[in-house]
Amino acid sequence: MRDDIRAWLDAESGLPDQPLRGEFYVDAGIFAAEMRDVLGRQWLYADHVSRIPRPGDYFLFEVGGESIIVVRRKDGTIGAYFNVCRHRGSRICLDRQGSLSSFVCPYHAWTYDLDGALRGAAHMPDDFERRDAGLMPCHVRELEGLIFLCLAEGEAPDFDALAEIARPYLALNGLAPARLAARRSYPTSANWKLVVDNFQECYHCAPAHKLYSSAHSKDKLLAFGAGPGSGPVDAAERFSGELATWRERASAAGTWLDARAEEEDDIRSIWSVGRLPIKAGALTESVDGAPVSRLMGRFAEFDGGHSAVAFNVFSYFLASNDHVVMIRFTPRGVLETDVEFQWFVHPEAEEDVDYEVERLVRVWDVTTTEDKRITEDNQAGVASSRYRPGRFSALEGRLSTIKRWYLHEMATASVPSHEELGA
Amino acid sequence: MRDDIRAWLDAESGLPDQPLRGEFYVDAGIFAAEMRDVLGRQWLYADHVSRIPRPGDYFLFEVGGESIIVVRRKDGTIGAYFNVCRHRGSRICLDRQGSLSSFVCPYHAWTYDLDGALRGAAHMPDDFERRDAGLMPCHVRELEGLIFLCLAEGEAPDFDALAEIARPYLALNGLAPARLAARRSYPTSANWKLVVDNFQECYHCAPAHKLYSSAHSKDKLLAFGAGPGSGPVDAAERFSGELATWRERASAAGTWLDARAEEEDDIRSIWSVGRLPIKAGALTESVDGAPVSRLMGRFAEFDGGHSAVAFNVFSYFLASNDHVVMIRFTPRGVLETDVEFQWFVHPEAEEDVDYEVERLVRVWDVTTTEDKRITEDNQAGVASSRYRPGRFSALEGRLSTIKRWYLHEMATASVPSHEELGA
Amino acid sequence: MRDDIRAWLDAESGLPDQPLRGEFYVDAGIFAAEMRDVLGRQWLYADHVSRIPRPGDYFLFEVGGESIIVVRRKDGTIGAYFNVCRHRGSRICLDRQGSLSSFVCPYHAWTYDLDGALRGAAHMPDDFERRDAGLMPCHVRELEGLIFLCLAEGEAPDFDALAEIARPYLALNGLAPARLAARRSYPTSANWKLVVDNFQECYHCAPAHKLYSSAHSKDKLLAFGAGPGSGPVDAAERFSGELATWRERASAAGTWLDARAEEEDDIRSIWSVGRLPIKAGALTESVDGAPVSRLMGRFAEFDGGHSAVAFNVFSYFLASNDHVVMIRFTPRGVLETDVEFQWFVHPEAEEDVDYEVERLVRVWDVTTTEDKRITEDNQAGVASSRYRPGRFSALEGRLSTIKRWYLHEMATASVPSHEELGA
Repeated sequence: MRDDIRAWLDAESGLPDQPLRGEFYVDAGIFAAEMRDVLGRQWLYADHVSRIPRPGDYFLFEVGGESIIVVRRKDGTIGAYFNVCRHRGSRICLDRQGSLSSFVCPYHAWTYDLDGALRGAAHMPDDFERRDAGLMPCHVRELEGLIFLCLAEGEAPDFDALAEIARPYLALNGLAPARLAARRSYPTSANWKLVVDNFQECYHCAPAHKLYSSAHSKDKLLAFGAGPGSGPVDAAERFSGELATWRERASAAGTWLDARAEEEDDIRSIWSVGRLPIKAGALTESVDGAPVSRLMGRFAEFDGGHSAVAFNVFSYFLASNDHVVMIRFTPRGVLETDVEFQWFVHPEAEEDVDYEVERLVRVWDVTTTEDKRITEDNQAGVASSRYRPGRFSALEGRLSTIKRWYLHEMATASVPSHEELGA
Repeated sequence: MRDDIRAWLDAESGLPDQPLRGEFYVDAGIFAAEMRDVLGRQWLYADHVSRIPRPGDYFLFEVGGESIIVVRRKDGTIGAYFNVCRHRGSRICLDRQGSLSSFVCPYHAWTYDLDGALRGAAHMPDDFERRDAGLMPCHVRELEGLIFLCLAEGEAPDFDALAEIARPYLALNGLAPARLAARRSYPTSANWKLVVDNFQECYHCAPAHKLYSSAHSKDKLLAFGAGPGSGPVDAAERFSGELATWRERASAAGTWLDARAEEEDDIRSIWSVGRLPIKAGALTESVDGAPVSRLMGRFAEFDGGHSAVAFNVFSYFLASNDHVVMIRFTPRGVLETDVEFQWFVHPEAEEDVDYEVERLVRVWDVTTTEDKRITEDNQAGVASSRYRPGRFSALEGRLSTIKRWYLHEMATASVPSHEELGA
Repeated sequence: MRDDIRAWLDAESGLPDQPLRGEFYVDAGIFAAEMRDVLGRQWLYADHVSRIPRPGDYFLFEVGGESIIVVRRKDGTIGAYFNVCRHRGSRICLDRQGSLSSFVCPYHAWTYDLDGALRGAAHMPDDFERRDAGLMPCHVRELEGLIFLCLAEGEAPDFDALAEIARPYLALNGLAPARLAARRSYPTSANWKLVVDNFQECYHCAPAHKLYSSAHSKDKLLAFGAGPGSGPVDAAERFSGELATWRERASAAGTWLDARAEEEDDIRSIWSVGRLPIKAGALTESVDGAPVSRLMGRFAEFDGGHSAVAFNVFSYFLASNDHVVMIRFTPRGVLETDVEFQWFVHPEAEEDVDYEVERLVRVWDVTTTEDKRITEDNQAGVASSRYRPGRFSALEGRLSTIKRWYLHEMATASVPSHEELGA
């Protein structure tokens, strides 16, 4: 690793209560290390299984310069392969999604089974071994209808432990059979860490998100705006009555679920799960609190609650009783991050009967459009010679935790040299 | 500093009579050093005070990646601050100009007084000291209505000595109360040093600027085209009669002012001041020599003279009796330089009565459009493997002086490493 | 040379049967070395003499960041000069082609004869020597109407040996007096080596080029698709009858010419020449085998043959009896390559009488449009972290030869440091 980066990382370890120094948001060498060793170790939400219902259906998942083919195999399971021919490296699938019975490289017609094995390659020497030339696999797992990928070259980190913790929250909404109602992109010209930090604190909700703030309990946003424990103790105390009342109601309905997050002593991953009330009188997270679609999953009536699962800093699940929001943050470059939202509803919900798209997406569409601008203005400032990391407020506790995790991951990362970057 | 750059600088010191080698016009490391240690040490003309007449009025001055808020404070003085919140670094002012009673960061509503002091920051820990978190100040000075900024992180270089030398030239035109009549930009895809060199010699005037050459005395352009002493001795002798005649006339009118420039033994800054005749029969610098607006300042009648002040290589004042031209060269990147012109007239001059904008701007609009193309074609050539610095002509004496100053500044500059550049 | 590049080059020497590792297609340092030491040592086809028929006619040839003026001099010979003024480096000629009696730099009017000598430079010091300030020459040679340039700074490699080998193939078509009928560009976002490899194997012809494959003998494409010896032995045997029949016919017509390529023990250049039958029944390389223009040069009747000359990996001549195709691959950047085609016909052929442009260009226009996509998809894949060079098939023998040549050239190249790149 470059000496200067190592020194910066060491210095940051002693500064848990403030943002990173400016270089972390602009340095190409740091970004390359993050892509390989931080992003590369995560289980990233790719899409919902409903996108590839039949054998041969596939879509491409693109992150950094990588393209992954995610395919429904003949046995019904899901496979994932790097979209790179083993002959001379051409992309194999060119369309972003489609359906096929085998993968045929358009360059020299090398042909692969849906499970990645090389089946045909004409004119090859006698000693060529097809079995050594299957598509390079990508780690893939499925959880309640959600497809997760891990681009790690060797072993992937454990998936199951968090999967079992998160499953009840997803299952409550009947996510596996749910159907996609809308998909929107908010490409943001900022470093991914600024996008993540923006999402993991609600200190900015009051000044910057009028609509979002009006849709949620004010005391909750102060106390638990970025998840349980994210606000100051006095705010939590103020919120405790409201929380207890709702917990009673949800428990009676059988829809109460505990809140949890990563443990202090296991900082190798960032995650959290939880259910909280929306606000007094609100049935769902919408402009006016009124339903935006049919009840989903196990909900027999509106319980006024809202579920949240952070699988890691890149992949999120948010759910009201009548819809689910899936969120992906995908770094594209040092200064470019894709921000993608999907909205899911009951599998039998009909557009313009049970839901209207604009009403369904309104709260997060407005809020994310605001966040895009905020984050881009933040990026412009941290690149200044006079940016000095300030101090986290009592509502930014999660940022301190995330910084600890980030520094832990980066401590074991290998930053490419300028030579390796081909700078 | 990088060894190769150090070696190049050393080699150039022995070559005073020729342009720099090609690397100086394309190398990102050299550019980064120039921004910090050459541009960063200059007093840059930012704008005229008339842009912010009332307390709370502000505009943004942008140079390199920096954004500076220049504001009229409550006590009527002018302040300048880096547009970077002390919390997490967001830009605070997003509009290029406006009016406000305090600075409120749009991210988390940190609030600063117009004098930069942090006034409000919610939910901060008890031991947080607001007095340590005021906006980072930028050096700012005012001279006859002109606002100058210096981005130096520590002490700024002296402003007063040159200010007192330049003041009579500015005051003669009554610049402080003058009003802006036009503003135009000529973004140029070339290194800033080529833009400066182009402006500091008139060897190219005859071949490349037909209109400009027709507006000025031919002998003057040869002798003093880039200021007194910029041409050869024989040209100065040919011009001496014309100069003496005009000097007598201006002295009688009380509008004669001497010509001066930086001293040989004080090469730490580049500057010059002077008044010269335009050409026989011309009252102002215009297409036909006829006035383009009302007399300004202390002029009671047209004296046929033209004033010029080079504050440094980036900021210039040019004035006829009836209008003032202010010029800014602002480096944007290794290969990008902003070239901006402002035209000022008498405060009571009325558009379409006393002046027409197109007639007012004509000479410099045409000339600068020509210079943009010239300079971009120069940039293309110096990037060639076969570019060899030639030899300065007798009309390019200022370029030799500027080279000496540049090498002096760079000798004490600290060139960032590739690591620091995050290349 | 950078240590990592040296190590990569060493490792590739032991891997003759597979493509290069991914870094070779994305690394800026490798590309800079290639431009200077590989491309810089080639004789590049620039254009046909008919573009500059009269003294003073010129055109610009642009490669990398260089611009070369190619001019018809007063004595009728052709000269080539770097388009860089010897004063301060401006471009001299700004239009891509034109006609003039001398070169006048638009900046300061330095004036050069058509043979590059400096004729005029005003206001220069007495000790300035014009004879040292002529335009920097570029190596230039002419062969049967084709103009070749070599950008080497010192001595150029031998031109004559290959010229004499290639001359009969060009002369057969009467190329010198031929006239240009069409010119098309296919800018390709891929490294130049992928463009070259794509052109030097016909393994992809069957899967990727339906039209091209239908225009040529199938057995020929397998056996000799990328020139004699480019396919497997059994394919050559299958093709031998067809070849012998045609050879007899062409010999009788006096139009048979042997096939040859660079020798195994002289790998310092890549070249090949040859004539082969198109396919049974085809008179020319066209959609249906029917003529697309008048017979050219020494052809008295259609002999069903097709000539090919690879001057090097960047410059190609392809000819049917009634038209000639000239091809240029010009690297523009690590990931950008210009692909340019010219079609020539009999000097007296009339458009819409003897030929229709769309019919004339059809086969290569379709094929090159296909190759552009193929090559760009190849580039996307080789940049993946999971790209692994595969194995060459029996139809990709030329790629192994080209790799050997490339590694030989690069072994003696000097890769610029990051410092030199100004990264």
